[in-house]
Amino acid sequence: MAGKEVIAEHGSFTAKDYHDPPPAPLVDAVELRKWSFYRALIAEFIATLLFLYIGVLTVIGYKSQTAASPDPCAGVGILGIAWAFGGMIFVLVYCTAGISGGHINPAVTFGLFLARKVSLIRAVTYMVAQCLGAICGVGLVKAFQKTYYNQNGGGANELADGYSTGVGLGAEIIGTFVLVYTVFSATDPKRKARDSHVPVLAPLPIGFAVFMVHLATIPITGTGINPARSLGAAVIYNQSKAWDDQWIFWVGPFIGAAIAAFHHQFILRAGAVKALSSFRSNP
Amino acid sequence: MAGKEVIAEHGSFTAKDYHDPPPAPLVDAVELRKWSFYRALIAEFIATLLFLYIGVLTVIGYKSQTAASPDPCAGVGILGIAWAFGGMIFVLVYCTAGISGGHINPAVTFGLFLARKVSLIRAVTYMVAQCLGAICGVGLVKAFQKTYYNQNGGGANELADGYSTGVGLGAEIIGTFVLVYTVFSATDPKRKARDSHVPVLAPLPIGFAVFMVHLATIPITGTGINPARSLGAAVIYNQSKAWDDQWIFWVGPFIGAAIAAFHHQFILRAGAVKALSSFRSNP
Amino acid sequence: MAGKEVIAEHGSFTAKDYHDPPPAPLVDAVELRKWSFYRALIAEFIATLLFLYIGVLTVIGYKSQTAASPDPCAGVGILGIAWAFGGMIFVLVYCTAGISGGHINPAVTFGLFLARKVSLIRAVTYMVAQCLGAICGVGLVKAFQKTYYNQNGGGANELADGYSTGVGLGAEIIGTFVLVYTVFSATDPKRKARDSHVPVLAPLPIGFAVFMVHLATIPITGTGINPARSLGAAVIYNQSKAWDDQWIFWVGPFIGAAIAAFHHQFILRAGAVKALSSFRSNP
Amino acid sequence: MAGKEVIAEHGSFTAKDYHDPPPAPLVDAVELRKWSFYRALIAEFIATLLFLYIGVLTVIGYKSQTAASPDPCAGVGILGIAWAFGGMIFVLVYCTAGISGGHINPAVTFGLFLARKVSLIRAVTYMVAQCLGAICGVGLVKAFQKTYYNQNGGGANELADGYSTGVGLGAEIIGTFVLVYTVFSATDPKRKARDSHVPVLAPLPIGFAVFMVHLATIPITGTGINPARSLGAAVIYNQSKAWDDQWIFWVGPFIGAAIAAFHHQFILRAGAVKALSSFRSNP
Repeated sequence: MAGKEVIAEHGSFTAKDYHDPPPAPLVDAVELRKWSFYRALIAEFIATLLFLYIGVLTVIGYKSQTAASPDPCAGVGILGIAWAFGGMIFVLVYCTAGISGGHINPAVTFGLFLARKVSLIRAVTYMVAQCLGAICGVGLVKAFQKTYYNQNGGGANELADGYSTGVGLGAEIIGTFVLVYTVFSATDPKRKARDSHVPVLAPLPIGFAVFMVHLATIPITGTGINPARSLGAAVIYNQSKAWDDQWIFWVGPFIGAAIAAFHHQFILRAGAVKALSSFRSNP
Repeated sequence: MAGKEVIAEHGSFTAKDYHDPPPAPLVDAVELRKWSFYRALIAEFIATLLFLYIGVLTVIGYKSQTAASPDPCAGVGILGIAWAFGGMIFVLVYCTAGISGGHINPAVTFGLFLARKVSLIRAVTYMVAQCLGAICGVGLVKAFQKTYYNQNGGGANELADGYSTGVGLGAEIIGTFVLVYTVFSATDPKRKARDSHVPVLAPLPIGFAVFMVHLATIPITGTGINPARSLGAAVIYNQSKAWDDQWIFWVGPFIGAAIAAFHHQFILRAGAVKALSSFRSNP
Repeated sequence: MAGKEVIAEHGSFTAKDYHDPPPAPLVDAVELRKWSFYRALIAEFIATLLFLYIGVLTVIGYKSQTAASPDPCAGVGILGIAWAFGGMIFVLVYCTAGISGGHINPAVTFGLFLARKVSLIRAVTYMVAQCLGAICGVGLVKAFQKTYYNQNGGGANELADGYSTGVGLGAEIIGTFVLVYTVFSATDPKRKARDSHVPVLAPLPIGFAVFMVHLATIPITGTGINPARSLGAAVIYNQSKAWDDQWIFWVGPFIGAAIAAFHHQFILRAGAVKALSSFRSNP
Repeated sequence: MAGKEVIAEHGSFTAKDYHDPPPAPLVDAVELRKWSFYRALIAEFIATLLFLYIGVLTVIGYKSQTAASPDPCAGVGILGIAWAFGGMIFVLVYCTAGISGGHINPAVTFGLFLARKVSLIRAVTYMVAQCLGAICGVGLVKAFQKTYYNQNGGGANELADGYSTGVGLGAEIIGTFVLVYTVFSATDPKRKARDSHVPVLAPLPIGFAVFMVHLATIPITGTGINPARSLGAAVIYNQSKAWDDQWIFWVGPFIGAAIAAFHHQFILRAGAVKALSSFRSNP
């Protein structure tokens, strides 16, 4: 808040004290020969697996407890479900940020690809790893809770009764925009130079963004904003309603991520400054 | 806690190791020619839009779920609503701090204007951007939940039954004081020098301050402490009760912000030291 | 995320890279002539006022909502009450740490006095400021919620039915130990040097310690662990049960704080090392 | 956590800007003669005692309140219980990280021993201290709540009805993997160099990992993922069901911790790079 007015005070800064990394190439053959690339795929796979395992297990556990109990408040509540998804993103982004960049979500990968932060080959392989991880994570939940899993909706994302397709799509677009906008803000190299002494605990606001969107949109779509999460649950639950609505949970998040990427690149960062260089010519 | 006793340990500090930026001018014609000024307005507009969208959608979703369900614990609860407003402020202040200063609230802008941290022209244009953003955010919620929005109070701030106008005004004044006091504490340049290695994750306590005030005052006024939030909901809901009480949610927050600004400038910072220079003359 | 580009910039450390500040004198006449001393008293007064205002208003609001509503889940719940007290401590310690040390609690002041971190005169005046602030904070709640305040127990700490005095005293002793142990751990000068690059966001664990103790001991005593909080509610509520049990909420916290202070000074820090110097003589 | 092994890295960096500390010896006779070793055992004992005291007291308080009250929402809820365990781990890891490494859990100690971060003698004595602390912590709860303790299950971990042994074991294995994976990620020396200015508030994600696992697996096993926690409750509760299931809460966590240790050492860190040196030979 108002941090920008503060005059830099540690040593002298040059006019531009940060580096924009160059745009990632579309295909980077060198990265395919590095162990760190395969390690990143493993990290994305395991993180998405754990994300779905904890998240969907919380959903099924909550629903089976409230169904079985005369006490309507048995279980962690919808608030607990929102915490499970948001909190796991905080923990997993924290754990994998240095290994894979901590995407854990094809929509985040898509947004970062559009902004040329990752190569096409990395983007595609990440998305495959994320989807496989999500399927395995939900599969574990079904294996653990056979009797309850199908009775309680399988953790699948579906449009709730009384909401139109357009509303569901809109909720996914805006929800994913909130998430990817936070990811771009948290990982901006400009921020790192400027706030060199103001801590940038990036995973926490990213996790909170996921938590917030769940609070708002669980009643509408069950909250996707992560195509791997929606696909994994649909594959394992495998009911027609979940498959019929599945496209919403791919189109919506990808549109939301694209808007966030363009907003960041053209409004907030250098792109816009260049586009509007007429503004700068009369200081 | 007890941080003041610690002797500074990194290099030698001069007697005064921080800079107070000079007071902002009332009208700063130069800033009107900079792209960064318009970018800041866009950031305030979008942040306030997202704040109201997530916050009011959570309110309407909760109320429609508990109304429809025989289970009184369906939905995220009042606690979830308080998290939605407080958590979004954390996320959005984090995202916009470097772009616009992360106000997202006309009362915060007013307090920072009184303390001469922002120019008059910036203060007025920020408030307009915030109010427009809030109207759009609540408008989205109404568009998404037509059938539920009007049935469930539209997320509008109104004085609850059984509370007098004075109590509502007092609750808004003190609640806004808590928020703006935290904002001033978190953005004090003196703090930044002193705690150069102690992290100052300013958005987190600011978000928590909003969360806390919601826990305490939702039963009284629904918790405004943000005139843009109250105006946006009133414009879209457009019922007479919301408009009759609207002045409380402008007068209260502005008084609270003014008290916080004067408290910070005259009690805690240089103003008071100068005013009481007689104290300093006998060290 | 991608922080690796930043190069470390602080020079070389000596063998012992931290300073234990000298013990505070019992009476420090010089501090009485400094404005910063009176400013610290004002900060403690206002912080304790806001702590009680938000905390007790949350308690009364919750109880009046659940009493009035057919929905037993209306209101923020006991979990919301625990958040209100713990979260406010986080926010207020963050805001006042640089002004007064952020005690906001006579038991914390007492523990830091025993460890010779503050002078006797500072300890006594802090406690007076805290108690006055607490009384004013609860007084505001009563003024705001006249009809509900007395019906709903006035936020006073009392031993619950079915618990003996010894249990209440024990709960207060251990609860305050948890808090003051966290305060000492968070403000240890040794930690600051050692973790110079590991962030030490001290107010957050301190606030969480308060939150945790509330989760555990609200059913037993309503959770004091802060004599100013208990006194303020007793003065305004002014019922015999609250006064009869009042001593528990002074004796318990002071014993807990004393144990934490001695544990920190003699087990964890230099005291013990000196006392057991025979251990060190055979490295 | 394990912060003490890290060698200070200020001053000049080599091309490889971090140090992997050498593997800890199996038996380190020198450490037995140091006070810091015994201090660490005391810290582990007290931290585990406080962890169980707060956690189990929250469980018993919640269950006794909901049993006694016609209001099903009296008490902090399952969500409050999950916060109590996760939040205490955050607070206690924060407090003891610099003293003992902040294990507070035999499974964490076992994982760090397998990764050669602690000596065998330290691992064994830590586990003994943790188990004794846990027994004392639950003992205090029973002493405080005699009438309620046995009626409400004693906070013991047991396999819930309808779940097979394999599911319980699997839930404990994956839950402990989540925790120990987070511990390794948070304490990686490579991270510390890389993120030298990006704050690494390690205790917060570690506490959140515990919170998340509780949300997901309380309905299955009551959530162990900490053999000391399960043993302490079983010793004090002392019912045959708790003893019959006890092995699950030792075998599961130890397997999960071992998988996390091997995953970290061989997939994510140097081990794998060496194993796959053929990859590196064609850069």
